[in-house]
Parts: sequence; C-alpha cells; structure tokens
Amino acid sequence: MEEQLLDKVMKEVMRRVGSGDAAEAKPAEGKSINDNIPKDLAGVTEFVGIGMGDTLGIVIANLDPAIHKLMDFDTKYRSIGIIGGRVGAGPQLMAADDAVKATNTEVIRVELPRDCKGGAGHGCFIIFGAEDVSDARRAVEVTLDMMPKYFGAVSANDQGHTECQYSARASQCLNKALGAPLGKAFGLILGAPAVIGMLMVDAAVKAADVEVLGYLSPGHGTSLTNEGAILVTGDSGAVRQAVIVGRDVGNTLLSAWGEEAQCLGTPYL
Amino acid sequence: MEEQLLDKVMKEVMRRVGSGDAAEAKPAEGKSINDNIPKDLAGVTEFVGIGMGDTLGIVIANLDPAIHKLMDFDTKYRSIGIIGGRVGAGPQLMAADDAVKATNTEVIRVELPRDCKGGAGHGCFIIFGAEDVSDARRAVEVTLDMMPKYFGAVSANDQGHTECQYSARASQCLNKALGAPLGKAFGLILGAPAVIGMLMVDAAVKAADVEVLGYLSPGHGTSLTNEGAILVTGDSGAVRQAVIVGRDVGNTLLSAWGEEAQCLGTPYL
Amino acid sequence: MEEQLLDKVMKEVMRRVGSGDAAEAKPAEGKSINDNIPKDLAGVTEFVGIGMGDTLGIVIANLDPAIHKLMDFDTKYRSIGIIGGRVGAGPQLMAADDAVKATNTEVIRVELPRDCKGGAGHGCFIIFGAEDVSDARRAVEVTLDMMPKYFGAVSANDQGHTECQYSARASQCLNKALGAPLGKAFGLILGAPAVIGMLMVDAAVKAADVEVLGYLSPGHGTSLTNEGAILVTGDSGAVRQAVIVGRDVGNTLLSAWGEEAQCLGTPYL
Repeated sequence: MEEQLLDKVMKEVMRRVGSGDAAEAKPAEGKSINDNIPKDLAGVTEFVGIGMGDTLGIVIANLDPAIHKLMDFDTKYRSIGIIGGRVGAGPQLMAADDAVKATNTEVIRVELPRDCKGGAGHGCFIIFGAEDVSDARRAVEVTLDMMPKYFGAVSANDQGHTECQYSARASQCLNKALGAPLGKAFGLILGAPAVIGMLMVDAAVKAADVEVLGYLSPGHGTSLTNEGAILVTGDSGAVRQAVIVGRDVGNTLLSAWGEEAQCLGTPYL
Repeated sequence: MEEQLLDKVMKEVMRRVGSGDAAEAKPAEGKSINDNIPKDLAGVTEFVGIGMGDTLGIVIANLDPAIHKLMDFDTKYRSIGIIGGRVGAGPQLMAADDAVKATNTEVIRVELPRDCKGGAGHGCFIIFGAEDVSDARRAVEVTLDMMPKYFGAVSANDQGHTECQYSARASQCLNKALGAPLGKAFGLILGAPAVIGMLMVDAAVKAADVEVLGYLSPGHGTSLTNEGAILVTGDSGAVRQAVIVGRDVGNTLLSAWGEEAQCLGTPYL
Repeated sequence: MEEQLLDKVMKEVMRRVGSGDAAEAKPAEGKSINDNIPKDLAGVTEFVGIGMGDTLGIVIANLDPAIHKLMDFDTKYRSIGIIGGRVGAGPQLMAADDAVKATNTEVIRVELPRDCKGGAGHGCFIIFGAEDVSDARRAVEVTLDMMPKYFGAVSANDQGHTECQYSARASQCLNKALGAPLGKAFGLILGAPAVIGMLMVDAAVKAADVEVLGYLSPGHGTSLTNEGAILVTGDSGAVRQAVIVGRDVGNTLLSAWGEEAQCLGTPYL
C-alpha cells in the first residue's frame, strides 16, 4: 500500500507543481503526447498539436492584416505556422529546420524567451511563413513529429542540462537563427549551467578540427540563460565527433551533484 | 486515513516547493491573504500589506535624498509608495491605475523583472510618488485591495497562462507603462507561451474593430518572457469584445495539455 | 509510520522537483557537499569540486586557442578557472574576491544569468585567468571553500530572499564586477522581490553614513531579476552598520507572508 500511495502522491505533486527543470519534457513511455487532447479543441481549427517541452503548434490561414503589418512580415506570406514551447529552443529549431526542408515554407521569426519552466535555458517562439495554409500546417506537423528525436540530444538532471545537436546539412532555419552555413554540416554543443558548457566547448574543439561559428554565454548571444555553447561547422565527420565528445564530458560533469543526467528523448547520435 | 495523509503531504510539498507557476497566486477561500501577518511587522511602519501574486506594498514617508537623487525621481515627491510582486505585472498595473485615479499620486517608475516564480511571465516593481505620505499609503492600499479583481482576468495551468484585462477609462499608470491613451477604453490580450498569445491576438483583432496600440513578444517589449500580447483601444464595447474573444480562445488552447486553466481571482468580465 | 512515509515522500519530491527557490542551496548538516561525488569524474581532470548554490568549479590548463580568441581573453592567461552556479551571484563574487587575494589570478569575466532555479535572482559565471594552472585551480578551490560563509549572508523563504554582504577590503573581483573601490570597505544590501530591496536600501542609508556607489533594480543593472539593491563604501564601521540594518529590516519584511526567512549558510556578521 505504501508504494501505491507514494505513486499517487508523486503523480499529484508533479501535476500541481511541475518539475522546475527540463526533465518533464519526456512523455510516458508507449504513449503519444497527443493522445489525451480535450475535445473542446475541435472547435479551434488553428490548433495543430502538442509535443515534448510543452510545445504547441498552431496555424493561422490568414493572419489579420493589422497584426501582419505590426510584426513586419513579408506580405507574400498570408499564412503562418507557429511553434512555441516552454522548454527548449534547440530541439524545436532543429526540427523546424527539417520542416523547412520538407515543405514550401520559410522561418520568418525566431524569438527565444528566458523560460525553461525554472530550468537554466530558453523557451521558443518560431514562425513559419507560407503562401499556402497547407504548407504552414505541414511545417508545424513535421516540427512536432521530430520533437522526440531532437530532445534525444538533450540530457538533464535537477542541476542543469546538456544539448548536443548535429545536422548533416543545415537549412534556412538554422541559418537564420544560428548563422549555420546553408547546406553544410552544423553542430551545437551546449551545457548548463554555463560552466559546464565551457568545458564541453573546450573539449569539443580540441577533439576535432571544426570551425567555430560563434559562442553563447549568459551575457553573449543568449536571452540571459545560464548556458555556455558553441556553434560549429566543417567536415561532417569532424562536426559529429566534436558534438559527441562535448556531450559525453558534459553529461559526466552534470553528474557531479550525484544524479545522472537523463536523456529526454530518443538519441540519434 | 490515506486521504488525510495525501492532504498533509500536499500541504507540506506546496510549502517547501512553491508552485512554479502562477497558480499559487490564489489565497484559500474565505480567508484574506492579510490574515496571518506576523506581529514583528508592527515595528516596520513602512509595511502596508500583502496581496495575491506574492505582492507586497510599502510606503516610505521621506525617501533618503541620496537614493531619491540616484533613482532620479521628481523632487516634489518626498513620499513614495511601492508595489512589488513575484507573479504578475498586469494585475498590479491595472490596480495601480485605479489607485492613481483614487488618490493624489502619480506612478513614477514601472520596472518589470523576468520572474513569475518559474512561470512564463513577469513580476513587477511599481512606484507611486506623492507629496503627502497618506496619499502614497492610500495608493498602495487601493492597489492591494484590487488584486482579487484583476487576478480574475488571469487563468493559469502548469503549461502557461492567459491574461485579458479591460479598462473603460485608462489613467496615468496604464498610459505610462503601456501607452494607453488617457481616458480611453483599453484592453490587454495576452497569452503564454507566446504561441498561445499569437492566436488570441489574431482572434481578438478579427472579432472586433479595435485599434492596436502595440504588441509584445519574447523579443519585443517584454522582459524576455514567454508571452505574446497586444494592447488595444477604441470603442469600449469593441475593446471588451476583443478581450473576451481573445481570452476564450486562449483558455481553450491552454487546455490542449489536458489540464484546464484555472481563473486565479474573481472574474470581472 | 506516517512520519516515515512523509519523510520518504518529501525526499522523493525534492529530488524530482527541486525547490524552485534559493533554499536548496543548503547542504545536509554535518555533511560536506563534496562527499558523494561519483567516481566517473575521476577521469575529468578539469573538475575541481562543487559547492552550495549548485555551484561547480573547473580548471582548464590550456584553453583552446580558438575559444581563447573568441572570448577575447588576455593572451597571457593560458589557464583559466571557472566558477558557475545556478543559485546566487553575490556569494560566489565575494568568495572569488577572496580567491584573487589569495592567489596569483585575476577575474577576467563575470556574467550573471537570470537564473536562481525559479527564484528571484541571478546565477553566475565567473572566470579566473592565470599564467599557471595551479593558481587557477587554487582560486577555484578557495572560492568553493568560502561558499558556506557567503551564503551565510543570504536568507530566503518561498517569497524571496535578502543578501547583505560585507567586505573590509574589496579586491579585484568586486572592483571589476560591482565597481567597489580597491582596498576599501564594501557592502552589498539586496532584497528580492525588489520592493523589499527598496526598504532595505532606504533603511541602510539612513542608518549609517556610507557612500552609495550605485543601485540595482529589475530594469537597472541586473539581468532582469526581481531584486533591489545598493552598493556602498565608506568607513568600515559604517558599511557594516548599513549592511546589518538593511538585512534585519529585509528579513522582517520577508516574513510578511507567514514564513520566516532561513539563513542558507553560516552567518559572518
């Protein structure tokens, strides 16, 4: 009985309190995160779906002209798709990059709040522009579908997280948001708190011959997050190698507080 | 017994952990949030009271000249009243606007931290200037008294929140902080995460003929919060209509994660 | 049994959820925070140790030249020591100031994220430069060792915190990060939410004849934290007095919500 009660209490606690770190990005095993969406949403035609990281996707077929103008979007994009999440910016940006490859859309706005539900990193707000609403919807669907893959490059415990993403061929989203050269291999090597990122960055650059495109730190290029990171390009094998070396040292360092970092999705590297 | 124990555990958990979102802004039913203030505070004559959203109000009869000068306040305001909260900026700003109407004070400083105790929004820091300390005190009291009303325009669950405020006649605080035209109807339509705000904004503007004064997003006009919002004015009926339409679609969208958004105060619309 | 169960549940809750405020900076009594570091870290030669406030210290003997250049560090500093924490900036800065006094190092970078794990304040990212790796390591060790002392100047409850630090003789770190005059007495008087800081500041300046070097507020000099603070210098007795007066009124005010603020370390004043 004690075990049952403990379980019951924990469910209630997690429901009321939330986890305060990125760990809750993970859905229950064998269940899609879109399984228990309430029926009321049937009336909201703009709703597309939800995904890991408290991510939500919508589509607006015909954005109101006043808002369109205010946000200074290109007039050719009548339809927009929007991805927004509380936890994570990297996974959603990687997924959105896949989405622009797969659809006739462009990422026209990327804004990264300081969020993460009390964790050390960002949330995200990403807008696709499309001439046709079906393209915008498809881009949002593709992005949501890719969440488990790209959260697979994130590991977290109560003290922080690492995120080590790799793309064999960066497209328009990664170019616009992070300065990745179009069509080239791209890597993101990131750790939080920022001190962990620094060691990952140093180890990664020493391990492989990559070109460093830029770095991120609490006061440089982030939205005041507690993250340290580099963005790299170069030969695809070298980029992969740098990403893996950075990830491994970062996860080891994160365990210094006694709790192993847990991968939040399905690792792809 | 199990139920009793569960209840006991939850109380302890909430005490130690805090809620991580705006939900804890709500006091227990039938109890004033000012009921159990410790006696030690009797010695602190500057203390005025507390309110929802971990809001606290104080008054300083005669601000130290060095601080007064450093903060560059108008010398005619010897006395200041201060409202500060961890959760929420909108409710406190709306209430402070009522307070300047009701007293001989002016809002002389508004600063909005990125806070919300792990939630997606702001905290607040609002300063009233007054020539007379009793005016400053009264402004703080009025503001605290109005908290339950204006938190009634906020709904929240673990994923985010909506805030849809309406004023029939904006005064000096809303003018200074948000650019509301003096004496005109004013509406704030806001959702978090920002993706929810975007749908609310679009729906609101399509539903009623209002003038959009400006928009807020993670990278534009907020303190890096995960919020999307517009500020509107126009005919009072139209502003009300826009606010209600925005609120309803926002709350429906928030429920996509399976938990309904709860209103934090007493709704006034 | 009920008590045992409650205890078990709370441990599990705190492990999964984290505390959402600065309170968890405190280690269990009679135990060093460095007692249960996993053996895997033995392979990471850069790891130095951990401390209160989810602080971690590392040393990099020979920072990669590409990163060195990108971060624009003085070339004479081949070795760097890094301190990073999720909770707190003041304690780590005070401790790092002791460390530069005790070693042949200089603080070459201070960046303060908006963090605090859902609390109202900063995290930190502090880098020591050294010509010799043993100096960098020693600076990091000294900093970590001083955490319990300087967290002794921090008190917190679920609503906020106060931090009132005093140095008889500021050195290069406090000079660089906070503008403290070298070799002079220095005080930091800070409260969160910012409204609490304002009363502390006013009380402190009225209580003692100190020179105010500057102030911090959500929109001025902080990383959008919900903090109000002043930095003071002057006669060491006066600075001490100002710090103590500010602290006491701040802690009384923090208790307005019904929970006394707990000191997080070992008070030194």
